[in-house]
Amino acid sequence: MYKLVLIRHGESQWNLENRFTGWHDVNLTDTGIAQATNAGKLLKEAGFEFDLAYTSVLLRAIKTLNLALEEMGQHYLPVERHWRLNERHYGALTGLNKAETAEKHGDEQVKMWRRSFDVPPPSVDTDSEHFPAHDRRYSNVDPEILPRAESLKLTIERVLPYWHDVIRPSIQDGKRIIIAAHGNSLRALVKYLDGMSEEEVLELNIPTGVPLVYELDNDMKPISKEYLGDPEEIKKMVNSVANQGKSN
Amino acid sequence: MYKLVLIRHGESQWNLENRFTGWHDVNLTDTGIAQATNAGKLLKEAGFEFDLAYTSVLLRAIKTLNLALEEMGQHYLPVERHWRLNERHYGALTGLNKAETAEKHGDEQVKMWRRSFDVPPPSVDTDSEHFPAHDRRYSNVDPEILPRAESLKLTIERVLPYWHDVIRPSIQDGKRIIIAAHGNSLRALVKYLDGMSEEEVLELNIPTGVPLVYELDNDMKPISKEYLGDPEEIKKMVNSVANQGKSN
Repeated sequence: MYKLVLIRHGESQWNLENRFTGWHDVNLTDTGIAQATNAGKLLKEAGFEFDLAYTSVLLRAIKTLNLALEEMGQHYLPVERHWRLNERHYGALTGLNKAETAEKHGDEQVKMWRRSFDVPPPSVDTDSEHFPAHDRRYSNVDPEILPRAESLKLTIERVLPYWHDVIRPSIQDGKRIIIAAHGNSLRALVKYLDGMSEEEVLELNIPTGVPLVYELDNDMKPISKEYLGDPEEIKKMVNSVANQGKSN
Repeated sequence: MYKLVLIRHGESQWNLENRFTGWHDVNLTDTGIAQATNAGKLLKEAGFEFDLAYTSVLLRAIKTLNLALEEMGQHYLPVERHWRLNERHYGALTGLNKAETAEKHGDEQVKMWRRSFDVPPPSVDTDSEHFPAHDRRYSNVDPEILPRAESLKLTIERVLPYWHDVIRPSIQDGKRIIIAAHGNSLRALVKYLDGMSEEEVLELNIPTGVPLVYELDNDMKPISKEYLGDPEEIKKMVNSVANQGKSN
């Protein structure tokens, strides 16, 4: 039996401003820092020990992981950063807030992007600052496979190779794993592990900074799944994420 | 021509209390946090870009690196942690302050440990909390090779295999490297790179939180070496470290 822990990064500056963030690299707010530290505290109290940690190449996830590891006294663990664990790329919506998006693209269109599984937002141009090929952290990736905009479906297709090729084998090698990532990259993993339908994953809202603990059998099928912490508090957080209207 | 940057961690809680720290895992003070962030600022202003970072498995070095990388906007870099970059192991002196050490072992004896290159302090017993085999972060290391006390000579012999086997090859592969470590593990690297004598390395005091920039030729021989920052300020810091009477 294996254990796996997922954490969604704490509140970021653009979560607070309700702007589409995606691959744009913003910092945690003070609330986000407190959430990350609290996640570490919950894991420490529950006696979790890890062997290896995975995260994205975006500061808000990396910092959430660093803060949680420090709080657990497990800052010495190896940490692997990978772009495949990044948030969904919001394309030309990146940087816009909900009001600006509705103004620019109309309410109906925005509703469609928010509720659809496979309709990506408009792409960024290749000369946009939001096209990842201009950022040296992606310089070892073929620009042809770097996203210019992603639906949830495209995000899942981009995340899962990293699960299959890297994370799953290391769990099967007996490594106890913690993953700090983003609303939609974690949705990708949860959809896959739980065998969710497209409709179900659209309803899935993962609260920020709350450790999600999976127990997996030898075939990597979930035996159990639970959030660590006070159930009433977690319920409130899930609803708050759902009401935010967007999950980045 | 290659560049290599070394940073000694910022002030730790036990630096402040003037206690022998060694492999004991203490946090940075607020001053130490400010020093680490300032190191990142200096490197950013000087336009440094790195491909890979190395550090020890001790919080004060890891956190110095994390803070500097965040300040530079290069938090996405791969970071390799390794016990061979740890501070010198102070054996049975671990946790004692200068006054306690003099009281317990006598002034003459303390002077000898401080000024000698190859006389280690008394060893910890294998049942001591300071014997590294009790710490799970060293569980993949043969307890026979884990230190119970180290002279500067033993520290250098323990650090250099990591330079030869890991860091040097990655520099020669063209990777631009930053190393965040400790007073004595950095002395090991500087002694080796500069071809210092035993007497010279004992006089070497590396200031905390100041990036030390090497330019190396194709044979890894130093072409130049300089601290980043205000020269007057650095001189003061070097003297302050020298007067501290111990370099941990």
